[in-house]
Amino acid sequence: TVKGINLENIFEMRKIDDALKLMDLVKRRKRAVVVGGGLVSVETAEAITKKGGKVTIIFEEDEILSLIFDDYIGRMIRNKLEENGIEVVSSSKIEQFYGINRVEAVKADGAIFPCDFVILATGVKPNTELAREARIRLGKHDGIIVNKRMKTEADNIYAAGDCVEINDFITNQSIPFQLATTAYREGEVAGENVSGGNRSIQDMVSNVCVKIFDIELASVGITCRDAVKNRIDVLQSNVETEDKIRYFPTKKKLWTSLLFNKKDNRLIGAQFAGEKAAVWGDFAALAVLKMMDIDELADFNTSYSPAVENFWTGITTAARRLRSSRENIS
Amino acid sequence: TVKGINLENIFEMRKIDDALKLMDLVKRRKRAVVVGGGLVSVETAEAITKKGGKVTIIFEEDEILSLIFDDYIGRMIRNKLEENGIEVVSSSKIEQFYGINRVEAVKADGAIFPCDFVILATGVKPNTELAREARIRLGKHDGIIVNKRMKTEADNIYAAGDCVEINDFITNQSIPFQLATTAYREGEVAGENVSGGNRSIQDMVSNVCVKIFDIELASVGITCRDAVKNRIDVLQSNVETEDKIRYFPTKKKLWTSLLFNKKDNRLIGAQFAGEKAAVWGDFAALAVLKMMDIDELADFNTSYSPAVENFWTGITTAARRLRSSRENIS
Repeated sequence: TVKGINLENIFEMRKIDDALKLMDLVKRRKRAVVVGGGLVSVETAEAITKKGGKVTIIFEEDEILSLIFDDYIGRMIRNKLEENGIEVVSSSKIEQFYGINRVEAVKADGAIFPCDFVILATGVKPNTELAREARIRLGKHDGIIVNKRMKTEADNIYAAGDCVEINDFITNQSIPFQLATTAYREGEVAGENVSGGNRSIQDMVSNVCVKIFDIELASVGITCRDAVKNRIDVLQSNVETEDKIRYFPTKKKLWTSLLFNKKDNRLIGAQFAGEKAAVWGDFAALAVLKMMDIDELADFNTSYSPAVENFWTGITTAARRLRSSRENIS
Repeated sequence: TVKGINLENIFEMRKIDDALKLMDLVKRRKRAVVVGGGLVSVETAEAITKKGGKVTIIFEEDEILSLIFDDYIGRMIRNKLEENGIEVVSSSKIEQFYGINRVEAVKADGAIFPCDFVILATGVKPNTELAREARIRLGKHDGIIVNKRMKTEADNIYAAGDCVEINDFITNQSIPFQLATTAYREGEVAGENVSGGNRSIQDMVSNVCVKIFDIELASVGITCRDAVKNRIDVLQSNVETEDKIRYFPTKKKLWTSLLFNKKDNRLIGAQFAGEKAAVWGDFAALAVLKMMDIDELADFNTSYSPAVENFWTGITTAARRLRSSRENIS
């Protein structure tokens, strides 16, 4: 554990009381350090900035939100944060918190960051105390192991939510999803089975959206970093498109990054930034679940009307570009 | 052919010159009758209205855009047109055009509509003159019959675009799609095969979007009317949802109508009006193509973030409502 972590004004962002405390603090004290490079960290940094605070985000990874975004969109997010006055300090490990009673500075990677308060947002661990006591088996990531019916390995005991690991459709690895959307669906399945039903959880593809300042973001499936870890060779296609045809004055931009498995050309990841990113994320999540490949996505018949949707969309454009480059090589 | 149809100022909306003529006419003459209840009719009526004209739309069907929308959204479209001062006359057949040289009135179903000009927008027929001369076989709808490679039944002759019929994925009937999006994809396939390639057209699900005044619309697959014609028993679910969680002030409405085949619970049609209708249409088109059923859509893991996308979307809400009502019955 890091020295000084018990100083006053160092806290997590878990409950409503934490948010109320933050809102109160930021009225009087302005300099914040947010530790961690994930969604909670970024959303908290934005909230503090909007309340007039000055934020430094410090994290160990080499890019912000690197668990769900690769560099094409990751850089865009970093720029968006910096544009809004947030200092982004990557590849940096917290060494110590300084202060007498209250925190006064953070030391990270040899540098000192003076601050009035610190938010810790370094991720959550499955709460498995009860499961351990009951000697229920846990997985590689310390989440409770459950089957498709959300039953643990103990008779008549079911589990759902942030404490469990479920199977990731792409890697076929058991991982903690820890999202409200998956937790709800797991809870429904567990609840129905506990009360005598027989229902299974659907194959799960990671599907996350978030808004950072004015930019909508979505991430689906796995990233390039995940692919390397899982020894999957990939083809990537990054494109910038507009949501309406070029002569429409109200057109807006969308950045799309698609990731295909090089072995079978199937879609395994998709990242979006900009106009309607979240719904395109849902579309991509369905395409991943249905194991669509480059050709199928390139030829998919999206709708078109000048005032509504462009002739080619981010997904069809990205798939078509990859197909052309492949044809030019062969 | 209708009497008086050759009078001046009665014309179609096919080419740029037609649009220029209309823009010029509407500066001086204000009262327009638009004949037909399809997309071209509605878009032309809106354009005339925005240029200061006063429009009456007259068509034979009992609701506007009834080829692609059922009543839930059809009524909404009619209201939108009427709100904007357009008179909508349904179930009415044109009997005669009156006038000396120029058109002065339209008689439809016994009623007289005085007007300064008339736009005919009653649909297009496949142009198959060349095919007939070459004795190439045509289909039930007078479109050229082609196989998956876009080859006609004559050796070395390919066809693509508004003149052909292709197979509809849901009904398995050969129909003329007559959309820019399908024409482009057909052209690519025909072109590649003509130049020695070997490519097939993807299974085609109808997927159309349009904006009428401030409301975005999308229609996918078949309608209830189509289902009746094809003797398919259906389950329908109509829901009104908001794109963001209830406490978000910028939330906007979406109306969703899903149509499932009663036999196997598979999605065969979807209609949307409102926020992000077109992209949800693309999502639904993919769901139809992948033969998703009520349960699979009810459990599908859409993404969620308060500032971006609601916990339940139009599609998941509609599918879940149908599932609950079914469970309550059984």
